[in-house]
Amino acid sequence: MSILVVGSVAFDSIRTPSGKVDRCLGGAATHFALAASFFTQVRVIGVVGEDFTAEHEAVFHARGIDTQGIERAAGKSFHWTGEYRENLNEAHTLGTDLNVFERFQPKIPEAYRDSEFLFLANIDPALQHRVRAQMPRVRMVCGDTMNYWITGHRENLALVLRDLDALLINDGEAKLLANEANLVRAAERIMAMGPKTLIVKHGEYGATAFFGEHSFPHRVRNRFFRAPALPMAEVVDPTGAGDSFAGGFFGYLASQPEATPTVFKQAMFYGGVMGSFAVERFGTERMQQLTREEIDERFQSFRELSHLDVQ
Amino acid sequence: MSILVVGSVAFDSIRTPSGKVDRCLGGAATHFALAASFFTQVRVIGVVGEDFTAEHEAVFHARGIDTQGIERAAGKSFHWTGEYRENLNEAHTLGTDLNVFERFQPKIPEAYRDSEFLFLANIDPALQHRVRAQMPRVRMVCGDTMNYWITGHRENLALVLRDLDALLINDGEAKLLANEANLVRAAERIMAMGPKTLIVKHGEYGATAFFGEHSFPHRVRNRFFRAPALPMAEVVDPTGAGDSFAGGFFGYLASQPEATPTVFKQAMFYGGVMGSFAVERFGTERMQQLTREEIDERFQSFRELSHLDVQ
Repeated sequence: MSILVVGSVAFDSIRTPSGKVDRCLGGAATHFALAASFFTQVRVIGVVGEDFTAEHEAVFHARGIDTQGIERAAGKSFHWTGEYRENLNEAHTLGTDLNVFERFQPKIPEAYRDSEFLFLANIDPALQHRVRAQMPRVRMVCGDTMNYWITGHRENLALVLRDLDALLINDGEAKLLANEANLVRAAERIMAMGPKTLIVKHGEYGATAFFGEHSFPHRVRNRFFRAPALPMAEVVDPTGAGDSFAGGFFGYLASQPEATPTVFKQAMFYGGVMGSFAVERFGTERMQQLTREEIDERFQSFRELSHLDVQ
Repeated sequence: MSILVVGSVAFDSIRTPSGKVDRCLGGAATHFALAASFFTQVRVIGVVGEDFTAEHEAVFHARGIDTQGIERAAGKSFHWTGEYRENLNEAHTLGTDLNVFERFQPKIPEAYRDSEFLFLANIDPALQHRVRAQMPRVRMVCGDTMNYWITGHRENLALVLRDLDALLINDGEAKLLANEANLVRAAERIMAMGPKTLIVKHGEYGATAFFGEHSFPHRVRNRFFRAPALPMAEVVDPTGAGDSFAGGFFGYLASQPEATPTVFKQAMFYGGVMGSFAVERFGTERMQQLTREEIDERFQSFRELSHLDVQ
């Protein structure tokens, strides 16, 4: 089934200990869409400037992604400049040129209206909420956010959280949002704000799903599920890892007839798998070369990584 | 089979967000021995002062732990004063009174000589090495260390590492020891120093085993194994969590006829289980009340936490 994603389509200039790259294709919606496209049909809503060429658009089309919701505006595309030092978990922003993104007003093409899954990538919660309100009949809505919106746009964010099926954020964001250092208690507080399920991404340590009373139609015995991350000898570029996790997770969910607890757990593993590929090259490079066979092979590695045989 | 552990038997004064406790029984050898005692016979080598009473010794005896290797010296026992603030992964040392520990010279009682498993808890590597040299016929030797020895006692530490079956340290220690920020590359460097297997503890995120060519008699397909940690709503006192992990891990290994890959992985899970109990109360309190039934129940929770059903 189709996923509609709204978020940034951007250019990134990135320096990491492995090298640097100037103005490569990036943005949360881009990374999400590419990862999800291996599992299901994806439609993108975003805005780009005149520097977004047919060559950039071809990256989406090569993966069968519908780009009619990517609006062209006069001016330049959103451009992020950042650096990762030895601690690859921490991005240092050197520049954020919003450009055409500054006046982004998401418009949903008529052909996108029947999308059954909606992903609200990390943008202004006012825009997330507006898109959500225009898609009243979706089956499942997942969202992302970041410290900037948590700190300064809490009221709008509250409206978004209120009816999310799942919120995907990292440890620091979860603790900030809940104002609580203990992750289990933070998860309880966040789920009380609306999200039926909370997925907290731990970077190189994997991700934990916190299930609530409404995560599934029937109550489940376990309140937590933890998916591992693959230990990697080289992380070339962490940019987009979280969005790729979200794409793998939500893309797999959307490809399945029902979001049972087992499907949900498998989706968490696919999230980890897609995140692990994303960081192997700069920008979208790895996703552009990836095959479904490689995904399935790595899924098996992830299973074996934590799988305990019964003697 | 019997495990011999050499390390500190001490008193700890600890303050955490959950409260405080003065001069409770602690020390690496104590935490290790209590955790391992649920799986196998444990013998302790350490030194205490005149403040170590029959009541303290009874804590060991209640768990069937052999204490004839705990030497009595004139003076006071090792006393650590520390504090944990909001970030419970980070201990702030307020005072270290070595006392009788300052002149500790481990002596191995004759009755301990047939121990088949040896755990070198976190003490001066010169002492670890001396004990190791006196136990040439043990089947398996595991060890721990910390930043202080890594930074200032590298030559002696190298002698210890040279013939360890497994080294158990945390992320920061692994990166410091290898002088390498990437954990996979750090693990390779550390295993080149001697340890056949490296176990890196990630605190609330679990632990990863890095297997080398000599981890098992036969080559194994997977180079990593990751055991989860249970998300906990309250960590009362993190002191001794790592030692309890080591006790659960090594205790289970020693209880099994052979350290196959499956047994090794189960041992990692038992390590996580024992660490999760240790932090529920101050000092050794939780271990003193614990039952084997509770351990088995939590082992199941750990399995379910990361277990992926095949559809």
